[in-house]
Amino acid sequence: MSEAIRIGIVGYGNLGRGVEQALAQNPDMRLEGIFTRRAPASIAPLQAGTKVHRMEALDGLRDAIDVLVLCGGSRDDLPVQAPALASRFCVVDSFDTHARIPEHFAAVDAAARGGGTTAVIAVGWDPGLFSLGRLYGEAFLPAGATHTFWGPGLSQGHSDAIRRVPGVKMGVQYTLPAEAAMERVRAGERPSFVTREMHTRACYVVLEEGADPSEVERAIQTMPHYFADYDTTVAFIDEEEFRRSHGKMPHGGFVIRTGETGQQSKQLFELRLALDSNPEFTASVLVAYARACHRLRQRGEVGAKTVFDIAPGLLSPREPAELRREML
Amino acid sequence: MSEAIRIGIVGYGNLGRGVEQALAQNPDMRLEGIFTRRAPASIAPLQAGTKVHRMEALDGLRDAIDVLVLCGGSRDDLPVQAPALASRFCVVDSFDTHARIPEHFAAVDAAARGGGTTAVIAVGWDPGLFSLGRLYGEAFLPAGATHTFWGPGLSQGHSDAIRRVPGVKMGVQYTLPAEAAMERVRAGERPSFVTREMHTRACYVVLEEGADPSEVERAIQTMPHYFADYDTTVAFIDEEEFRRSHGKMPHGGFVIRTGETGQQSKQLFELRLALDSNPEFTASVLVAYARACHRLRQRGEVGAKTVFDIAPGLLSPREPAELRREML
Repeated sequence: MSEAIRIGIVGYGNLGRGVEQALAQNPDMRLEGIFTRRAPASIAPLQAGTKVHRMEALDGLRDAIDVLVLCGGSRDDLPVQAPALASRFCVVDSFDTHARIPEHFAAVDAAARGGGTTAVIAVGWDPGLFSLGRLYGEAFLPAGATHTFWGPGLSQGHSDAIRRVPGVKMGVQYTLPAEAAMERVRAGERPSFVTREMHTRACYVVLEEGADPSEVERAIQTMPHYFADYDTTVAFIDEEEFRRSHGKMPHGGFVIRTGETGQQSKQLFELRLALDSNPEFTASVLVAYARACHRLRQRGEVGAKTVFDIAPGLLSPREPAELRREML
Repeated sequence: MSEAIRIGIVGYGNLGRGVEQALAQNPDMRLEGIFTRRAPASIAPLQAGTKVHRMEALDGLRDAIDVLVLCGGSRDDLPVQAPALASRFCVVDSFDTHARIPEHFAAVDAAARGGGTTAVIAVGWDPGLFSLGRLYGEAFLPAGATHTFWGPGLSQGHSDAIRRVPGVKMGVQYTLPAEAAMERVRAGERPSFVTREMHTRACYVVLEEGADPSEVERAIQTMPHYFADYDTTVAFIDEEEFRRSHGKMPHGGFVIRTGETGQQSKQLFELRLALDSNPEFTASVLVAYARACHRLRQRGEVGAKTVFDIAPGLLSPREPAELRREML
């Protein structure tokens, strides 16, 4: 086996912790350290032996790290960090603001080409594995329709929105796919849905003392952009139940492609994820693409890439001949 | 748009007809003709305007065809045809004898490298799309287990076996995945199954006049390799019902990857196909890989490839920037 791929983690929230754990499942890779803007001493890594450095320590490490996995947020961190670091390092990020992918790609691509590095952006499950499902589905069934359903799963953005409502002490929101809508899609109807028909939203709230439940419920259900276009339920629970039942970050969903071939043969392709931990799965996907990123750089393929540009075999630690023999 | 990719179909059974129909759904490709070992006049193409040629006509057409889609069988046709034609043409085939893929790959690779062509082998849904599901599943969840279930679907090989039983006039066999087994897999149990637990087999038979049903049933259920290891049901029906209900070639199945990340987060990735027409879907996948094959040849990437070697974006007629904007 060739030498281990040397990985750095930039940012140490839920995603960074997931990457640290995922690397332990991939013996062809080695964690060189976590790089943070916080005080390194304030961070307690999950694994004994993981080193924590100040971000500035990266300055001397260009030749000591093969790929940086960027674990910051899409709104504030990645638009700045990804281009800045791609000019010096191979990087993989999970940028997930769909509408801004073209500009993010352009910025990272320019930086990576300038620095002679390889950068894989928008990696995870949506964008990421779900994007692959949409692409394969359309390529294999060009006459058809694709629907993506999300959930059951915890939405971070919507949970944050709940917590900003006056009277809410703690809150989480789960997105639920509408079974009836999925069945219509699977039946090949190719329906056009309004937002309300595809997903519902379920909120679990712990009230501040003295808060009015009906007031809070109304404030949530009528909140524009977040809840007004959905059928939203609000359940009030106590703090103990909240801590017991709502501490995880499950998510998942469905990509469903239906199409017709020949005269009228109905064909269905469906991809499903059911995740106990959204950040850990995203991290695990990032680590597989870090492997591919390193291999592309070794071949001299510099610039920004997405999951669409990367041959599946590059994701696996196994040799091509072994993959053909055992997995094809 | 660049010029249409010029396609030739070699062999005109169910799969060849499927390719002819799939090409009509892909306006960036153009069918140059069908090439057959039969008398061209004996073949009636599905689409008006499709030309039929003797196989020998290929000799003068090296510069007139971009990719040949090989639609012969894996047992007798492809092991000979694929290397022979790959030495002169870019080819795509649906070679599906899993155990012989390494030798087929080696033979086609040598021919393609010798001829400076690109060849994509073992394309379809299994091997093919299901192989991709297995590879992505393992790459993203390295600590886990993958199970493939087939069906509900018509098995050509098992139907042929039934029809060789004395007393059987007509017969089909459907492979059915065992729901209970799939539920155990989805629950993350990672069970080890014996053959009988994963699939059952359902046969529909029209008897020859005077044949003994219990004799036929016994002969089928005890047939080694094909049925003895399965729970097999045999239903006797009349010829009219046979023609009415069993004339299609549906198939499909499930690839299920379960794994754990972090401490004990269970993660599930599942891919499902439900196909009214197995050959039409296989054909549709072949056509998408013919597009990728042509693009790889244009880049100078010669030799044999499989679905593992091909970046997903190469399968789509859309431009990379459009894919990033609309599908990622």
